[in-house]
Amino acid sequence: MSVARRLGAETVGTALLLATVVGSGIMAERFSGGNSAIALLANTLATGAALVALILTFGPLSGAHFNPAVTLADAIEGGSSWLETPAYILAQVAGAVLGTISAHLMFQLPLLSLSRRVRSGPSQVFSEFVATFGLLSVIWGCSRLRSSAVAFAVGSYITAAYWFTASTSFANPAVTLARSLTDTFSGIRPADAPWFHTGPTRWRACRDVSVSLAGAWLDGNRLGNCRSAW
Amino acid sequence: MSVARRLGAETVGTALLLATVVGSGIMAERFSGGNSAIALLANTLATGAALVALILTFGPLSGAHFNPAVTLADAIEGGSSWLETPAYILAQVAGAVLGTISAHLMFQLPLLSLSRRVRSGPSQVFSEFVATFGLLSVIWGCSRLRSSAVAFAVGSYITAAYWFTASTSFANPAVTLARSLTDTFSGIRPADAPWFHTGPTRWRACRDVSVSLAGAWLDGNRLGNCRSAW
Amino acid sequence: MSVARRLGAETVGTALLLATVVGSGIMAERFSGGNSAIALLANTLATGAALVALILTFGPLSGAHFNPAVTLADAIEGGSSWLETPAYILAQVAGAVLGTISAHLMFQLPLLSLSRRVRSGPSQVFSEFVATFGLLSVIWGCSRLRSSAVAFAVGSYITAAYWFTASTSFANPAVTLARSLTDTFSGIRPADAPWFHTGPTRWRACRDVSVSLAGAWLDGNRLGNCRSAW
Amino acid sequence: MSVARRLGAETVGTALLLATVVGSGIMAERFSGGNSAIALLANTLATGAALVALILTFGPLSGAHFNPAVTLADAIEGGSSWLETPAYILAQVAGAVLGTISAHLMFQLPLLSLSRRVRSGPSQVFSEFVATFGLLSVIWGCSRLRSSAVAFAVGSYITAAYWFTASTSFANPAVTLARSLTDTFSGIRPADAPWFHTGPTRWRACRDVSVSLAGAWLDGNRLGNCRSAW
Repeated sequence: MSVARRLGAETVGTALLLATVVGSGIMAERFSGGNSAIALLANTLATGAALVALILTFGPLSGAHFNPAVTLADAIEGGSSWLETPAYILAQVAGAVLGTISAHLMFQLPLLSLSRRVRSGPSQVFSEFVATFGLLSVIWGCSRLRSSAVAFAVGSYITAAYWFTASTSFANPAVTLARSLTDTFSGIRPADAPWFHTGPTRWRACRDVSVSLAGAWLDGNRLGNCRSAW
Repeated sequence: MSVARRLGAETVGTALLLATVVGSGIMAERFSGGNSAIALLANTLATGAALVALILTFGPLSGAHFNPAVTLADAIEGGSSWLETPAYILAQVAGAVLGTISAHLMFQLPLLSLSRRVRSGPSQVFSEFVATFGLLSVIWGCSRLRSSAVAFAVGSYITAAYWFTASTSFANPAVTLARSLTDTFSGIRPADAPWFHTGPTRWRACRDVSVSLAGAWLDGNRLGNCRSAW
Repeated sequence: MSVARRLGAETVGTALLLATVVGSGIMAERFSGGNSAIALLANTLATGAALVALILTFGPLSGAHFNPAVTLADAIEGGSSWLETPAYILAQVAGAVLGTISAHLMFQLPLLSLSRRVRSGPSQVFSEFVATFGLLSVIWGCSRLRSSAVAFAVGSYITAAYWFTASTSFANPAVTLARSLTDTFSGIRPADAPWFHTGPTRWRACRDVSVSLAGAWLDGNRLGNCRSAW
Repeated sequence: MSVARRLGAETVGTALLLATVVGSGIMAERFSGGNSAIALLANTLATGAALVALILTFGPLSGAHFNPAVTLADAIEGGSSWLETPAYILAQVAGAVLGTISAHLMFQLPLLSLSRRVRSGPSQVFSEFVATFGLLSVIWGCSRLRSSAVAFAVGSYITAAYWFTASTSFANPAVTLARSLTDTFSGIRPADAPWFHTGPTRWRACRDVSVSLAGAWLDGNRLGNCRSAW
């Protein structure tokens, strides 16, 4: 599989993922008559289903990361080349923004709009810590399984995490960036995006601990690698 | 597997799919007390589940296309014979109409009724473009997997696409035709059916680009085939 | 696997299935504040999930029929012995009644109560015809697959059929009998149970056609067997 | 796999499970505008999805019990060592409490709070009996299948059991203990926790019968083992 093809898969996959996250949020809010639980149920169902479909589809092509945190963690683990890491992340961010624009076009909204949805405070940072730790545990724990099992594990995990984190699980920097660009149901105020709110250093430290912990308890001798890489 | 049997599978499968799409829409609207999000949740759940069941069932028999766009794309890819293509499409359209009639009978409605539900505008055409592109990407991307994985991928994809397209995903000409014949929750005004609204030529061009793009990025040297075939 | 063990599996499995169908209906109605769509969504989710769990569990033991129609169809197909058929059906009926009693106990209701829920008319008979035809198609079409795929196919099919049949799919005589014994959300007035409403002869004829059709188109030379067996 | 690693997997897995059960309950109640059915639908969806993800992830590491009843039953069956049983149970209880604390932190609530939610009476004890019997049947019945099938079977079973037991299925002592420590949607008043309400002896007898029955009918000659072990 050529590099160009894999980058294309990451871009298209992340774009379809964000089109689902943002688009289903818009539709859910329009239809739900003000009941947030129903809107979030629809948003969750669509997102979980999209992840299953997209990981089954793009897993054999590019690994179906759709997430800079996963790409970095994979490079730390030696699963993918450090040379490709920046290109992967760029492809994911581009795809995420493209998907958000697509969702806005499909619902006749301005191409991009800064979110005004407040999601702040220390409980959000802690939520992100738990969500990232859990996501990496699931991905690493499942790496022994067939790729179709990983699709169901990740889709199911995010379905659960939408409901157990107060922030509806932003454990994905590319998704968070794109969600700060939509002033709709799934948006997040840029000022509340985790890296901004806590300051780059504290956020990096928090995420560092989360990745290290997940790596460490799943494989004791990875702790050193994690620390040196981040 | 004889041709007759495969055509029978396409007819029965598409009929059960439409019976689900239209029937669950009727029941959902009757029961939901005016909350469209709840009605669409039920409609989505039933449709996604039907696709999983029907593709698992009919996949080994006929390929479980249920969709002229998929049959055409498959022929372009060399997966099925061009001689059978018209018969497949005829079977799908017949099944779709039959399924809609069945749903109406089950809910004591007139056999057929032209829909008056407006779903128009350029955002709908763009939605169809995204939905078709995504569906073909999922189907082609998954063609390496076991047929049971394809069932979950397509069922999950349509579950997501119901919520991220403003048109609840008509990426299927046979389904769209049948849905224009039901004046219920899942209907679409005939005048708004994509090929009508945009005019045959423009619609064909739009769909052409979508198929070409999906084919091209999944396998570079298919672009030529796509162009020449459509 | 001894006969006693297989009959035990059919009894326990059908009992847990009915405990779910009836119990989740009671809880859904109590909690849903009068919105039938929400209640049916919960009822559907629980039933579909129970079918997946129970067919995965009991499939390797007894075949996980839980349904006289499936057992009869299986005997017609030569899959199981005609000698065991009456015992299987008895086990299923006993399990279904036991499960309904359990649900009533769990929700502090009288052990059994005749349903007063009206579900009548020719559209119901036609719904049953479609639902039975579809269920047998799914089961026979999937018989080539692994038993875990059958679990997902049947669970998904019933999830869909709950919403596309006006009667919420009674394609199972043992379930219908048990549901006539509960005056709750999932009940059906005994006078409306299909065999009663249409008269035994007409009902048998209707079901006969449904089974024959499903058998015939899936395997042409089975039509004779079906006719002679019923 | 070292003992420490397996205990770590049980702790982390049970913690993420309880974070989901408690956290999604809090979010669902806050968002659902007083409609308990919608709140329970969200709670169910999140819990079932978490179980699928966590069993797929931790199954190959520790067996993914997350439940003292399962660990005891497994030891009775000879599947795991009696020496490790107390450590496993301690890890599960610690993880369950840790997960509840995490959920409270994520939603800015006091670390722990005794539940005041009343769930009492003989129907609850009977519900627990049915739920435990069913869960052990599913786990033992599926032990012949691949671990990924077990994940779907258990996730689906609990999804169903949330709706068919009046107590939303506490068939897990570690979960019940943790749920008595949260005064939110998913809580249970400590005085109503099954072992308390019925008195240790009667509760043990009730659970004893449930485990014995499940073991006995799945494998006749296990009845003796069950009796002597409990």
